[in-house]
Amino acid sequence: MKVLGLVVEYNPYHNGHLYHLNTAKSLVNPDYVVAVMSGNFVQRGEPAIIDKFSRTEVAVKMGVDIVFELPFVYAIQDASGFANGAVGILERTSVVSDLVFGSESADIESLSQISDILVNQPKEYKKTLNRYLKEGLSFPNARKYALNDYFAHMNEEKEIIEKLEKSNDILGLEYLNALKLYDSKIKPQAIKRAGASYNEENYTGEISSATAIRKLIEEGDFEKVRDAVPDVSYDVLKREIALKKGPVFLEDMRDMILAKVRMMNRKDFSKIDGIKEGLDRRFLDCSKVSSTINQLLMCVKTKRFTLTRIKRTLLKIFFDLTASDVQLYNKYGPQYLRVLGFSKNGQKLLGQIKKVSKFPIITTPSRYKRIYNKLSDESLLTNKKFNSIPEIFLKQIEYDFLASNIYSLLYKDKKYAIYEPDMVTKVFIY
Amino acid sequence: MKVLGLVVEYNPYHNGHLYHLNTAKSLVNPDYVVAVMSGNFVQRGEPAIIDKFSRTEVAVKMGVDIVFELPFVYAIQDASGFANGAVGILERTSVVSDLVFGSESADIESLSQISDILVNQPKEYKKTLNRYLKEGLSFPNARKYALNDYFAHMNEEKEIIEKLEKSNDILGLEYLNALKLYDSKIKPQAIKRAGASYNEENYTGEISSATAIRKLIEEGDFEKVRDAVPDVSYDVLKREIALKKGPVFLEDMRDMILAKVRMMNRKDFSKIDGIKEGLDRRFLDCSKVSSTINQLLMCVKTKRFTLTRIKRTLLKIFFDLTASDVQLYNKYGPQYLRVLGFSKNGQKLLGQIKKVSKFPIITTPSRYKRIYNKLSDESLLTNKKFNSIPEIFLKQIEYDFLASNIYSLLYKDKKYAIYEPDMVTKVFIY
Repeated sequence: MKVLGLVVEYNPYHNGHLYHLNTAKSLVNPDYVVAVMSGNFVQRGEPAIIDKFSRTEVAVKMGVDIVFELPFVYAIQDASGFANGAVGILERTSVVSDLVFGSESADIESLSQISDILVNQPKEYKKTLNRYLKEGLSFPNARKYALNDYFAHMNEEKEIIEKLEKSNDILGLEYLNALKLYDSKIKPQAIKRAGASYNEENYTGEISSATAIRKLIEEGDFEKVRDAVPDVSYDVLKREIALKKGPVFLEDMRDMILAKVRMMNRKDFSKIDGIKEGLDRRFLDCSKVSSTINQLLMCVKTKRFTLTRIKRTLLKIFFDLTASDVQLYNKYGPQYLRVLGFSKNGQKLLGQIKKVSKFPIITTPSRYKRIYNKLSDESLLTNKKFNSIPEIFLKQIEYDFLASNIYSLLYKDKKYAIYEPDMVTKVFIY
Repeated sequence: MKVLGLVVEYNPYHNGHLYHLNTAKSLVNPDYVVAVMSGNFVQRGEPAIIDKFSRTEVAVKMGVDIVFELPFVYAIQDASGFANGAVGILERTSVVSDLVFGSESADIESLSQISDILVNQPKEYKKTLNRYLKEGLSFPNARKYALNDYFAHMNEEKEIIEKLEKSNDILGLEYLNALKLYDSKIKPQAIKRAGASYNEENYTGEISSATAIRKLIEEGDFEKVRDAVPDVSYDVLKREIALKKGPVFLEDMRDMILAKVRMMNRKDFSKIDGIKEGLDRRFLDCSKVSSTINQLLMCVKTKRFTLTRIKRTLLKIFFDLTASDVQLYNKYGPQYLRVLGFSKNGQKLLGQIKKVSKFPIITTPSRYKRIYNKLSDESLLTNKKFNSIPEIFLKQIEYDFLASNIYSLLYKDKKYAIYEPDMVTKVFIY
């Protein structure tokens, strides 16, 4: 049985995603397609433009058999943590056979070689890396140059620098690293991305980046949006906007984020994951001279830290995501498989996953406390049904609920903010 | 020298305030009038409709010689804590001779007798009070009945119950209590309130309550507002609204407050001042089913707790005002005299206060760290210039700054939220 696994955000679903799905399918010829998808907050350090429930609907209608939620605590991490969570979900279904990811190079061999070095950390590499870091380079840059030096030293010519500058290659590399960490049998494959690059901000026709499409939505240019996304995606987008749920932007969090940071002191900042090298001081100072999120980001940003990283850090600050907790999450991986939606076809696969997975499948989130109790009860047994660690299970899933509770405050029409949406929204079945 | 002291909020300044000032002046015939005024948050548990700087401007133009800010940590307390802070400021100027307050009864003799009992707490009274509390009565009600019983027991006929149901009598009583606690020589006098009662929500012509006027402002009925407030007040109100600074309402804090409470757990709530008898649980549950501040308040409210008390508690929750800190504030009183504005006449008095007061006069808030250091340096001396306790000084004044930092996020036009307003806004001189 072939099960194709995808890591997606669908923020929003566009023609490039459809192209990727079709190419991956023709490559793997799968019986099922499953996707792990960011929830209400995405890896760019922003709320998703429409909520996870409507994005799930599009995903399933476009051919994904099961949509799993990437737990919030991974979704807003850097490439490495994001990949750890996403690959963890796919691996822990126990049924995924192939992971196909988009990549600028699609050079899986080179990426694999690099991954070996990153995971095994040979002495020579580590020494060079540390030297670059001490010289003041950012981690991605230091890593890039250290790898380059290492390959030069091994007399191998690799266009390494180029590969590590493209965001999908970086992410692909992290998938490979994560597969190794999980000791996974899932076969990774890279395919060339079609059309616009991830960071291209401008509309480039039928294959436009999600960034460009979100910009069009913000500007209200729905004619162009219609060209760049499948009809199913367009209809759901328009519906969510007509309902006054979306579109949601980071700036909508202005009041809650600025109120929060204006109340924090340096010590509060310093506990947060990703805060180092003076970022606490920068956030502290900048929070006092900024009247919008954008001003805050621009104030905090330095050459050393990318804007995306600052945005992710800001969300971590807002959600009190501490370095020590993130370390635990990355060490133990995701503790449950939250199902957001599935197709008729996917239902069969879900039955199978329930039998073989060592992690609880969550389809009715309101029962999470019962599952937690079950996990706690069996925590001393040697022959456990589940491998989840109860305390980490609880923290992770409550973060998903919290993320939704905060996201619901961002819906344009206040009436949608009434109750914990995760507890009342049914799994999408199609 | 006669110095008349007033306790005010001026939210906004209306004809009733002018009447009170004139009556008080004719009663005391003062050389100077000073007022202690709530800052950006008021005792009703709400942000003020326009900011403290513009309300100071009106106060000074209408004849107050010096406006002192009632520190935030007192302004949002119940009548007792509010009075403690307000009387503390007046007392610690060392120059105020008379305190004149509005009152429904204006029966200073009865209020004084009641105050004696409340401060001295005779055994018989205390026993009855505790019995009523145990029966489930709210504190104000229990106190009211216990006093009634006590006076009946002493064969004194007092229309006690009536007096303790009127909010200005209650507040007046707390002023008397506070004067006793500070062992103050200030002479208290009560005068009848003109026209509408404090809680009257409807427009009642030239003498309308602040509540009614705020409602008119919210509804945009400025013709009626014009009739109910002096021209000076009207002009400043209109200017602040034209600038898109005001009007500010509690509901404007929706995002920041709901985001905050949705992140809190029961233990977080239980540390807050005023949280008891299951209020933590109520706030926890209600925070999850409310999409507006009003819904949250209505959900939390019970017969036992008044709406105003719930609102004050909500602000304390938002600002992390803990029970243990409030206890300290009430034990040691306000630690500085923050001047928001003064008249030419007031300038002379200010010079005198600087000579005789044992508490630092703050006219340039940005120098507060220097004052804190000075206080710390002399904390071991026996012959101190100031009686302030450095740590409490710091906490109190930083709360004032924080309150302004949060308030500035509520200005209608985001551009006013740029920088700590307390650090850059000059004292108003007229």
